[in-house]
Amino acid sequence: MTHPTRGAESLALGSGPEFDRIRKIIQELGARGAGLGDDCGLIPTADGSLALSTDVSVEGVHFRLDWIGFPDVGWRATAAALSDLAAEGASPLGVLCAVTMPAHAAESQLIDVMSGAGAAAASVGAPVLGGDLSSGRGWSVAVTVIGRAPRPVTRAGSQPGDHLWVTGTLGGSRAALEAWRRGEPPDPESLKRYAHPEPRITAGRWLAEHGARAMIDLSDGLAGDARHLAAASAVAIDVELNALPLDAGVCREAGRLGVPAAQFAAEGGEDFELLTTLPSSFDGAADFSRECGIPLTRIGTVRAGSDVRFLHDGVTLILQGFSHFG
Amino acid sequence: MTHPTRGAESLALGSGPEFDRIRKIIQELGARGAGLGDDCGLIPTADGSLALSTDVSVEGVHFRLDWIGFPDVGWRATAAALSDLAAEGASPLGVLCAVTMPAHAAESQLIDVMSGAGAAAASVGAPVLGGDLSSGRGWSVAVTVIGRAPRPVTRAGSQPGDHLWVTGTLGGSRAALEAWRRGEPPDPESLKRYAHPEPRITAGRWLAEHGARAMIDLSDGLAGDARHLAAASAVAIDVELNALPLDAGVCREAGRLGVPAAQFAAEGGEDFELLTTLPSSFDGAADFSRECGIPLTRIGTVRAGSDVRFLHDGVTLILQGFSHFG
Repeated sequence: MTHPTRGAESLALGSGPEFDRIRKIIQELGARGAGLGDDCGLIPTADGSLALSTDVSVEGVHFRLDWIGFPDVGWRATAAALSDLAAEGASPLGVLCAVTMPAHAAESQLIDVMSGAGAAAASVGAPVLGGDLSSGRGWSVAVTVIGRAPRPVTRAGSQPGDHLWVTGTLGGSRAALEAWRRGEPPDPESLKRYAHPEPRITAGRWLAEHGARAMIDLSDGLAGDARHLAAASAVAIDVELNALPLDAGVCREAGRLGVPAAQFAAEGGEDFELLTTLPSSFDGAADFSRECGIPLTRIGTVRAGSDVRFLHDGVTLILQGFSHFG
Repeated sequence: MTHPTRGAESLALGSGPEFDRIRKIIQELGARGAGLGDDCGLIPTADGSLALSTDVSVEGVHFRLDWIGFPDVGWRATAAALSDLAAEGASPLGVLCAVTMPAHAAESQLIDVMSGAGAAAASVGAPVLGGDLSSGRGWSVAVTVIGRAPRPVTRAGSQPGDHLWVTGTLGGSRAALEAWRRGEPPDPESLKRYAHPEPRITAGRWLAEHGARAMIDLSDGLAGDARHLAAASAVAIDVELNALPLDAGVCREAGRLGVPAAQFAAEGGEDFELLTTLPSSFDGAADFSRECGIPLTRIGTVRAGSDVRFLHDGVTLILQGFSHFG
C-alpha cells in the first residue's frame, strides 16, 4: 500500500481516459485496492518493503511482430515491468511471465519470447520464478516483478523547491515508432531504445540512496508522467524543455513532423527512464553518471501549486501524454 | 526456487504437449528459470518462504462471456491463481491483475471484472496490490498472487506408503462445461463450481500444518495432476476411482456421455481442489472437515515406481488429462 491514508476520490494521477478508468476501479475496490496508483504495490517487511508490479504487453497495442523479433517481445515486456521496480528504488528478486500465444504459433517463437524475458531478468540478477501459458487470439506477455526496497520511493514525496531530474536520454522509442509509421526502418539507436530498453535498476537504487524524494518511470511519456508525479506529490512542476537530454534519432523525426525536438520527446512514451525530484542541494550528477553509466540531467523545478508547465524558450506549451498506437 | 538441484532434463511434470513446452522453456532458460515447474515460485526468507504464482484466463479458452458474467470472470481468474498459493500451504499477501479488454468494451464491464477479482482476493484477506490495463482483441485477465509459506509444500515430497487425499468434491466444473456444450444451462451447483470456485487457502494451510508431504491443486484434472505429483515426487500412485468424492451434477452429465462418473470427474479440470499425500498414520480427516468446512477423502496410495494407475472396480483405466476448450 503506497497511499494508505488516501481515498479514491483524491487518487493522485494525472488526467486522461486511462487514468479515469483506474480511478474508478480504485473507487470500486475501496480498501481492497489500497495498493493501486503507484509504480509498485508495497508490502511492508522487517527491513523495508517488498515492491510488486504487473505490466502487460499486447501485440498490436504495445508491439508489432513486423517491427521486432520474438526475443525482443519478451525482453521489452520484462524490461517495462522491471522499470517500475527501478522507479521504486527496488532491487529485483524475481519475475513471472504469463504468455498468451495464437494456437497456430510455432513453439520456437514461444521459446524465443521466454528467452528474451529470461535475459532481461538475468540482466538485473533476477530469476524467472513462474509462468503460465495459454492460447489466445494474439501474442500477449503479462510480466509481474517483485523486488526488495529498503527505502521505497513513491510518486508522492516531492516538495516545493526540489529540482526535477531525468536519467538517460529521451525520445528514441517514439522516433522508432514514427519511422515505422512512415514505413521506413528506424535508425539503429532508436530501434534499440524501442526494442531493447535497459531497466534502470542501478540508477533507481542509486537515486533512492542519494535522497530522491519522489520517482516515476517514463512509460506514459514525460508529458503524462510529470503530471502523475505532480498530482501524487500535490505540487506544481515547471519543465524546461530546452534542458531535455535527447536521443540521437529524435531531431530527424521531430523535424519531419514539424514539432520542436524536445516536445516530440516529451510527448513520446516508453523511454523507461526515471524522472525524480531531489532537494535543491543535490550536486551528485557527475557521481551518478560515473557509477551508473548514463547521464542525469536537471530539467525543471518543483513549485507550490498543482499544475505542470512545459516551458520552451520562455513560452508555455500544451503537451499531450503518450497513447499506445493500438 | 522449488527444485534448485534439478536440471531441466529431469523436470518433473506429467506427459502432454503443454508440459513438453514448459520443459523446453525451462531447458532454454537454464539456471535463469530455476523456479519453474511447481505451483508456486519460492523466495526463501528468514521465517519461511514467499510464494508467487501467475495465471492467465483468456476469453474463448478459459471462459466464454455467454456462460458467465464479468464479475465471475474476475473472481474465477483470481481464485485460480490463489489456488496455487493454497497448494503451497501459503497465506495470501496480495494480488495483482493485468486486464486486457476489447477497445469497444464498456467501462462498467472492466469495473465488474475488477470487482470480482477484488472480492475473490478479499475472501482470503488479500488486497489488490497492483494492476495494468490494455486494449486487445479479447478479454484476458492475468493474475499474480503472492503469499507467505512458513513451510512450503511442493509437489516433490511424496513417499511410498503415503496415502493420497483430496479436498472437497470433484467434477462440477466439467459438468457445467458439458451442459454448455450441449446448449443447455448447467445445474446451479455445477455452475457455481465453474464460475465461482472457492480458493482452498484455509484447507491448504491446515494440510501444510498437519504433515502434508506433497500437494498440487487440481487445475489440469486429477488424471493430469496426479501424474505431475507422481513425477515430481518420483513415485507411483494408485488412484481408487470408486473413492472419488463427486459433485452432485456429475452423474447426469457422465451418464449422457456414457462414461463412469468417477472417470468423468478425474478427466475434468479446474475443480481447484487440493490433491495431497500424507503419511499413512494420518487420521485427521474429521478434524479437517470440521475446521475447513469441506470433506477430505482418501482416494489412493503412493507406491515405489513411476506410473499412475486409475483403478475402477479392480480394472485399470487409461485416463486423459484435461485440455481447455479453446
